[in-house]
Amino acid sequence: MRTRVFRFFPANPGDVSGLAEAIATGVVQAEQIVAILGKTEGNGAINDFSRGLAIMSFGRLLGPLLGCAPEQVEDRIVLSFSGGTEGVTCPHYLVFAIDDADGHTEDRGLALAVGYTRSFAPEESGRLPMILETARVVGTLQRHLAVDSGDVHLVQVKAAIPPVPADPGRAHAREWRCDMAWSRGASALGVALALGEVSAARLHDDMINRDWSLYSTRASVSAKPGLLRSEICVFANARGWAGEFQIVHDVMQDILDVAAIHRVLHKMGLRPVDGQLPQEESRRIYGAFAKSDADPRGHVRGRRHTMWTDGDISDMRHSRSVISSLLSAVLGESAVYVSTRAEHQGPLGGGPVAIIARNVSEGSAAANGASAATEYEGDMKCP
Amino acid sequence: MRTRVFRFFPANPGDVSGLAEAIATGVVQAEQIVAILGKTEGNGAINDFSRGLAIMSFGRLLGPLLGCAPEQVEDRIVLSFSGGTEGVTCPHYLVFAIDDADGHTEDRGLALAVGYTRSFAPEESGRLPMILETARVVGTLQRHLAVDSGDVHLVQVKAAIPPVPADPGRAHAREWRCDMAWSRGASALGVALALGEVSAARLHDDMINRDWSLYSTRASVSAKPGLLRSEICVFANARGWAGEFQIVHDVMQDILDVAAIHRVLHKMGLRPVDGQLPQEESRRIYGAFAKSDADPRGHVRGRRHTMWTDGDISDMRHSRSVISSLLSAVLGESAVYVSTRAEHQGPLGGGPVAIIARNVSEGSAAANGASAATEYEGDMKCP
Amino acid sequence: MRTRVFRFFPANPGDVSGLAEAIATGVVQAEQIVAILGKTEGNGAINDFSRGLAIMSFGRLLGPLLGCAPEQVEDRIVLSFSGGTEGVTCPHYLVFAIDDADGHTEDRGLALAVGYTRSFAPEESGRLPMILETARVVGTLQRHLAVDSGDVHLVQVKAAIPPVPADPGRAHAREWRCDMAWSRGASALGVALALGEVSAARLHDDMINRDWSLYSTRASVSAKPGLLRSEICVFANARGWAGEFQIVHDVMQDILDVAAIHRVLHKMGLRPVDGQLPQEESRRIYGAFAKSDADPRGHVRGRRHTMWTDGDISDMRHSRSVISSLLSAVLGESAVYVSTRAEHQGPLGGGPVAIIARNVSEGSAAANGASAATEYEGDMKCP
Amino acid sequence: MRTRVFRFFPANPGDVSGLAEAIATGVVQAEQIVAILGKTEGNGAINDFSRGLAIMSFGRLLGPLLGCAPEQVEDRIVLSFSGGTEGVTCPHYLVFAIDDADGHTEDRGLALAVGYTRSFAPEESGRLPMILETARVVGTLQRHLAVDSGDVHLVQVKAAIPPVPADPGRAHAREWRCDMAWSRGASALGVALALGEVSAARLHDDMINRDWSLYSTRASVSAKPGLLRSEICVFANARGWAGEFQIVHDVMQDILDVAAIHRVLHKMGLRPVDGQLPQEESRRIYGAFAKSDADPRGHVRGRRHTMWTDGDISDMRHSRSVISSLLSAVLGESAVYVSTRAEHQGPLGGGPVAIIARNVSEGSAAANGASAATEYEGDMKCP
Repeated sequence: MRTRVFRFFPANPGDVSGLAEAIATGVVQAEQIVAILGKTEGNGAINDFSRGLAIMSFGRLLGPLLGCAPEQVEDRIVLSFSGGTEGVTCPHYLVFAIDDADGHTEDRGLALAVGYTRSFAPEESGRLPMILETARVVGTLQRHLAVDSGDVHLVQVKAAIPPVPADPGRAHAREWRCDMAWSRGASALGVALALGEVSAARLHDDMINRDWSLYSTRASVSAKPGLLRSEICVFANARGWAGEFQIVHDVMQDILDVAAIHRVLHKMGLRPVDGQLPQEESRRIYGAFAKSDADPRGHVRGRRHTMWTDGDISDMRHSRSVISSLLSAVLGESAVYVSTRAEHQGPLGGGPVAIIARNVSEGSAAANGASAATEYEGDMKCP
Repeated sequence: MRTRVFRFFPANPGDVSGLAEAIATGVVQAEQIVAILGKTEGNGAINDFSRGLAIMSFGRLLGPLLGCAPEQVEDRIVLSFSGGTEGVTCPHYLVFAIDDADGHTEDRGLALAVGYTRSFAPEESGRLPMILETARVVGTLQRHLAVDSGDVHLVQVKAAIPPVPADPGRAHAREWRCDMAWSRGASALGVALALGEVSAARLHDDMINRDWSLYSTRASVSAKPGLLRSEICVFANARGWAGEFQIVHDVMQDILDVAAIHRVLHKMGLRPVDGQLPQEESRRIYGAFAKSDADPRGHVRGRRHTMWTDGDISDMRHSRSVISSLLSAVLGESAVYVSTRAEHQGPLGGGPVAIIARNVSEGSAAANGASAATEYEGDMKCP
Repeated sequence: MRTRVFRFFPANPGDVSGLAEAIATGVVQAEQIVAILGKTEGNGAINDFSRGLAIMSFGRLLGPLLGCAPEQVEDRIVLSFSGGTEGVTCPHYLVFAIDDADGHTEDRGLALAVGYTRSFAPEESGRLPMILETARVVGTLQRHLAVDSGDVHLVQVKAAIPPVPADPGRAHAREWRCDMAWSRGASALGVALALGEVSAARLHDDMINRDWSLYSTRASVSAKPGLLRSEICVFANARGWAGEFQIVHDVMQDILDVAAIHRVLHKMGLRPVDGQLPQEESRRIYGAFAKSDADPRGHVRGRRHTMWTDGDISDMRHSRSVISSLLSAVLGESAVYVSTRAEHQGPLGGGPVAIIARNVSEGSAAANGASAATEYEGDMKCP
Repeated sequence: MRTRVFRFFPANPGDVSGLAEAIATGVVQAEQIVAILGKTEGNGAINDFSRGLAIMSFGRLLGPLLGCAPEQVEDRIVLSFSGGTEGVTCPHYLVFAIDDADGHTEDRGLALAVGYTRSFAPEESGRLPMILETARVVGTLQRHLAVDSGDVHLVQVKAAIPPVPADPGRAHAREWRCDMAWSRGASALGVALALGEVSAARLHDDMINRDWSLYSTRASVSAKPGLLRSEICVFANARGWAGEFQIVHDVMQDILDVAAIHRVLHKMGLRPVDGQLPQEESRRIYGAFAKSDADPRGHVRGRRHTMWTDGDISDMRHSRSVISSLLSAVLGESAVYVSTRAEHQGPLGGGPVAIIARNVSEGSAAANGASAATEYEGDMKCP
């Protein structure tokens, strides 16, 4: 098996011309695509419709190619877009395609498996049943890839938020946990449970979004109102998968923990010089994923920050900008994927970081098929 | 001579209690203060009144101590506040005090000289006369400190913007250059000229804010409407000044040039590990100054950015956040001073960076007077 | 002939379920739709993708019904969405459908004609040729409707902005007028010329966006980068058109000229009580269109305003909120369409206002077909 | 007795030159000033320091004149500044001065009384004791003015928020009600109780900020963290007070209830024409106070609004803009004072409105002393 990663630079959130051309020229096979992850240039808040525009655009492109209606593409391919390209962040999307290319059996390359939870009842949202079901699916995917939990480096979850029932006879609205924060918290703990990062004995309804000492170092969760089942992507390095790409993770202890990024690179054999990858190594970076949070205690390393008291810029946009800046500077690459709100994803004020890089030591890019590294750029528009 | 640097962490822009206590306890002598530079938590735009609040507060504190009216303090001490503490930036202010403490004659410590241009006529603003007069004052201050231009590491300018005359008989409003951009551009070129970074032959009215190949690597200019004369602080390392603090600069070639920050640290003998100063070395950092700009070409290193097309967050707030994040991460210290709009201050899209650190190799802090390193923190308020 | 107006309240910019149901139940015939105008809940700035999402959604719905590709729907139906639902503004869209229903010949009901300019060359943009060509099309549409210029009450223009040629051999970029402000200004003057509001003798390249004494009281122009030809909708009351709906306009002299709104209502026989239409009359309002601008002189009626000096909220969002508030309050109806930047659309600081109302005196709603008044509401989502 | 009202238009929040000149020329006597209320051009959020700048500036001006330290002025004069001049709102401040001028005994003119609650313990904040103590002071002030509750038209409260004790031995932080929302809610109910708008029997801890059917039509409350005692201004029309100014109130049932503003004017004998006061009557308006709120149910009169789902502009800035626009348009005067968050101040989604006008029918302005009507305008600055 082989996971191939293609990176595109759209001119706007609805621009799918890059992928269209890659498919038209045979570089990408539509039916091999399992996930598309991207950053779009909205504000990342409730009223960010750049994500919807991207999803609709990919549906229009891929529906006919997959023989389904545009709106059904989302059921066959994970489409996960995060709004907010603050600071230097470059809007981009990554297409993950899997084929059965022959890898050397001793390879341990990037592997990817996608699964879905069952639908959640409203009373399960943000509670133990959501933790357990999320953990069950992660476990299944892990077994499917035949990897140890230590080989899993990123679990991307688009978490369900079942609607609160309208029936007034049921429990009072205040007790429902059908919102984004609860859904993210429970889902992240589900990942942590599956990967052995927390013990089942410590998990119960009351510790969710309260006991921040328990967390996953690899969960990256967003939640979507109205989504009934959670969508889960497990990224790992797996034996028998072609070794062209690899993924490695670490966890930032706080929003300034740039050393965590360096540790990831070291594990990949990449060496920043004066704080930044040399251009040659920078070009090997294909994906960088991190969660950000403005520390709710109002300070970082003893210094006050003002991300929570700014009446005009939300803490979410502030914190994404910080983590994006650090990743972009260390990697020498600003096409990074930072999303915010990290309940039980890394310690309080910190968060996981995972990086996907091409493993050129496996052979030259040409030998492995230069097409895998092709980037299709849309027209870049300047102000 | 000796320049001492005191750093304070106010609870809000009007909080001068830290300095008040330092003066009350004899740590700082009011009459030795020559400059106070700080970051305040406004938006940094026209309607940012946090700066005015800070200036008024220092006037109220220092006027009685200096035997002048509160509003006259600004005429005797450089008060320069930059609004906008985006991301992790910690609001803070630095108090620079000079005394005639005995330094070893072979010392080369932080030296500071302050001067003023003459008042500018409206027709001079943003034109060659402003360049020349700015250069004249910088040269005078440099000679006063008896330093080579290579010893100068930061020239902080609060630049004049004379008001456009109301007289309709004079030239048409369109031709005046009485605005912030013109004033910054001409003043920065004045610094460049004084420091030998550009030759006089290449300077003329038409190249200002147009020929970006000419710039200073050490100018840091803000402009203030209604200010008639420019205020200039020259920071250098000078022979015969006590060596407790030193200043070093470099120039970022673009907004991601984190290597420039590393180079500054290297020159100071400081060694980041995994991209960040160890805590022990981090504590030696007392000031970090940089200019930021969102590259007007709309991309950085070939990647599109969206700082200019965001309808809700200004490019200024975006770019400050990026540079502040990089500085804070490398230094392990978020009390950094980043201001924006860098016409002729570093290359297009880049900007100067200067760092002040305590030179502990000169002896233990205690030996040099621990008080010099004392930080007075106001109460930190969390959300 | 008959123009029918249907109003829908989408749950988000991509929600076209209301129109879908109206078509499915036979209330609306897809092939009779000539224009869809709406307000979407983006920020109205360059990075507002709510408009693109709406257009793509209508394409997906209507393409199959019209027998064309989704992306071709825009060529057959005017789709004009304005971002920014500041304050109380309710996101909504109006569907205009024309059929050949028999109107009494003495009727003078709402009539609508749509046309297109030829494609503009870059050197024509924002100059006299754009004025003249726009005027030509407006004149043609007016003749098509067989109305006097006094019967025309709204000319909605989506104005072309041809791309600047890449060829460096052509004139310097500074001289091009290929941007939104120039395109809006020239297009509005074209409307003014066609309607006899300005004389051709006073029009030339140099007065555009400079001589604000010349303007149209009925033009409402937005401009779209990359659009090669302008799309023009002329709304009038025309003899022989069924009289169920009527349109009336007036012009606000400044942003507080609420009396202009009252004058429109008076002309329609509607009577606000204590500044607001009674509920029964409020229900007759089906469309309200206005342009807003923050007076560039910085004051309104001698009072300073701060819309231009706010570093966090753009003047565009501020001014839309003001006009939307006035319209919503007077009409008792917050589904209003206010767009901003009104060069040569009304006097400096003011702008046109036009209102569409059902003319119930022509007979009961039931008699005219209750369906014409049907509103299809999507689910309203509360925070 | 006589209350005089002076209105000033500062060039920025720190500009007190208008009042300074009025005092210097003998128009205003510093020692007669009892309150200064103003709108400043900040964002009105936590990080709005325009208010602090105004307070400090008035302290600097008035301290020497009152023979006290600048920071003590706040203890002698109510200084209440509300940030946020969205839309057309004109930054301004009103100075209320009381002297013992001889009014006709049959006069019923504007009267003003100021008082303070005792300091509140943390456990009292946002609970019944705060209601009762607030009511007690309002009652005392009412008796002092010798007016019926029906004569009271505005009770402006700057409400205390005692700090939560640091002692961990005391009750858990979750149970404290030491925040702005609780303080506003309890204080407003205190006003309602004192004015007989609610019965004591229905007041208890659990109904605060929950049972929105109980409210005051005349309370206008803001809360200030760290303020230990609440400051209360009662505005009434009282027998024996000179009749030059009068105050009248009404309550807006929702954010579009412009009729409430008209009702206030009718009671004053003022007649809007086409929705707006004629210029002659507009000039009689000296103060307009209202509270705004974005309806938390997400819709107004059955129409969705998006004030709560905007990720970039807070609901507070949105709602202030709406109410300010309505007031400014009806009054033909944009120097209006709208503040936001109206717990128990008017019904849910609505709020009180009170207007102060000069009563010219009592005699010509000249006869009553033209100086009372003098407006001192600072230089207006345009962008």
